[in-house]
Amino acid sequence: MDPRIREHARIVVDHCLDVQPGDRVLVDAKPAVEEFVVALYEELGKRDAIPMRIGASPRASRAYLREFDPEAAALKDQKLAALEAADKLVMAWGMENTRETVDVADEVSNALGEANQQIMEAHLDMDWVGTMHPMPGNAQAAEMSTDAYEAFVYDAIEKDWDEQRRFQQQLVDILDPADEVRIVSGETTDIRMSVGGMDAGNDYAKRNLPGGEAYTVPVPDSVEGEVLFDLPVVTRGEELADVWLRFESGEVVEFEADSGEGTLESILNRDQGSRRLGELGIGMNRDIDQLTNHMLFDEKMGDTVHLALGRCLDEVVPEGMTGNESSLHVDLLVDMSEDSFIEVDGEVVQRNGVFRFEEGFDH
Amino acid sequence: MDPRIREHARIVVDHCLDVQPGDRVLVDAKPAVEEFVVALYEELGKRDAIPMRIGASPRASRAYLREFDPEAAALKDQKLAALEAADKLVMAWGMENTRETVDVADEVSNALGEANQQIMEAHLDMDWVGTMHPMPGNAQAAEMSTDAYEAFVYDAIEKDWDEQRRFQQQLVDILDPADEVRIVSGETTDIRMSVGGMDAGNDYAKRNLPGGEAYTVPVPDSVEGEVLFDLPVVTRGEELADVWLRFESGEVVEFEADSGEGTLESILNRDQGSRRLGELGIGMNRDIDQLTNHMLFDEKMGDTVHLALGRCLDEVVPEGMTGNESSLHVDLLVDMSEDSFIEVDGEVVQRNGVFRFEEGFDH
Repeated sequence: MDPRIREHARIVVDHCLDVQPGDRVLVDAKPAVEEFVVALYEELGKRDAIPMRIGASPRASRAYLREFDPEAAALKDQKLAALEAADKLVMAWGMENTRETVDVADEVSNALGEANQQIMEAHLDMDWVGTMHPMPGNAQAAEMSTDAYEAFVYDAIEKDWDEQRRFQQQLVDILDPADEVRIVSGETTDIRMSVGGMDAGNDYAKRNLPGGEAYTVPVPDSVEGEVLFDLPVVTRGEELADVWLRFESGEVVEFEADSGEGTLESILNRDQGSRRLGELGIGMNRDIDQLTNHMLFDEKMGDTVHLALGRCLDEVVPEGMTGNESSLHVDLLVDMSEDSFIEVDGEVVQRNGVFRFEEGFDH
Repeated sequence: MDPRIREHARIVVDHCLDVQPGDRVLVDAKPAVEEFVVALYEELGKRDAIPMRIGASPRASRAYLREFDPEAAALKDQKLAALEAADKLVMAWGMENTRETVDVADEVSNALGEANQQIMEAHLDMDWVGTMHPMPGNAQAAEMSTDAYEAFVYDAIEKDWDEQRRFQQQLVDILDPADEVRIVSGETTDIRMSVGGMDAGNDYAKRNLPGGEAYTVPVPDSVEGEVLFDLPVVTRGEELADVWLRFESGEVVEFEADSGEGTLESILNRDQGSRRLGELGIGMNRDIDQLTNHMLFDEKMGDTVHLALGRCLDEVVPEGMTGNESSLHVDLLVDMSEDSFIEVDGEVVQRNGVFRFEEGFDH
């Protein structure tokens, strides 16, 4: 076995989840990521944990979804029960074909998604981590060879997470007490929002592996201005490119997109919270130096900012504060590497991708 | 996809489990049997059931088991919870390598087996079926080409189960009210037992696919005589060949085996019930015409009888009767095709493999 797979499994069990003897662990992994599961089971054995594997293949899901009547959508009780009885959850992504369910009607996926909201909440209530076992389908989606993609993934994952945590904490310490954040890029993006009273979080790979961002939550009504998301993202199997949004009192009042405008419109109209922001994140994992069309990596890319339409990240919304509510969470990305800056309470904290606390910062 | 796989899935969902809309179904299937799971998910979609897939690969299990400290063995709570929340269970066997866990210490498997007795009981309490997706490893264990093995498996599985049920019912109707059964084969087997008061069961593929046997449970103390199990079986990865047992008052008092005598001895000494019989089964699936080293098929082979050491089949033990108790259930096989007969209450019901209710029966 590729030693990088073993090291990946060790980081998951050790750093991300700190697995203890007797921990009941769910391993949610498609059949295709078998090699990673073997390595993970070996690590779980060393720690005397009690694992159980779950997860159907995209091919099986597609076959099911194409026959299923969305009116029969119901809660997957047996999965909820397994989650509730488990202590920790590993989700291992990785696909042979990222477009396997492209010919499933949205209606069916949406109906099952809604019927299973409780499962999503149970996920978020437990210790979990999501990670990527690099597969040819993901490499293809990233427009990379499988070999180069593997190198990319392991570079992003297998790093000194304590050092990364300390690096990111410098920005978290700025964002945490902040009131106003302003993001400016070229002529096309100038957006302000209040984060006053919100906490800031340090993603050093406890829930996502790789991690690599500092993040907080905007006060829902406070967002004003316009933003061009000049890095493409794939959502629901469709690319959204050059999405442009204008906000007033926190809400999107105007929008455009170079591609995927129909999908964008259906996202914005999904529910009451889908026109407001639930997250401001700043990518800080410099080993992620290119887009791969997978948000696990793309949102942590160095020199980027992401804003998410929809559901807020509850863990940085303190008692007494309110973040945005929605059934969606769609991240959109701005390139901050050139002609760009982030201002916090009137002071520039990043210019052209370089932070104030780094060498080469241009005051 | 091979149309036989779809038909196999249809039989499981339709005949074996009679899946209804909204049924919560667990699909316990190793990654290697992916093709069958795709077909099964399609059928479950047609019936608007709610499936969840579970099951780790033998490679992952081995990696885990070799590192796990047996003293840490504990109940897999998350699996028990999933089983209890489900209505129906499909177990799909099929291996790339049937010897994948041969280098795991018995001690570890046994410790986990004992810690998970409750899961075994939960299995038996629900609607379940076990079946085989034909894989190269199973073909190899059967000493067959993969192609020939596939043909064999689908012949045994894809048949008119109503017709098979009616065929078997003729024997069930004889066994059900019977008192004494005697089995004689050559000079080496002459064994008697009471089945008085026990029910008889008709295995027409509700819990095993293929099915194909009539079965009952001996009164534990009643077994007398000797039996040579002249067909080999594989148990715990070891072949038991020409096992010979002598019973007195229901208990094995003398034993021998041409191969696997050590394993046989450890089976007999496992617990209080492991020297007594828990099952008398008569194989009636004539499409199973050769041994394959897998009990799912071997015990249903035409012209055979099997007796099981250990745990009885509770479903044919009526209120007020007592079958044998044990943590084991080990089936052993006698060839009845030549120089053999089965007598029920003094009357021959099968001679040289031909039943009394069939053409060619030699009174």
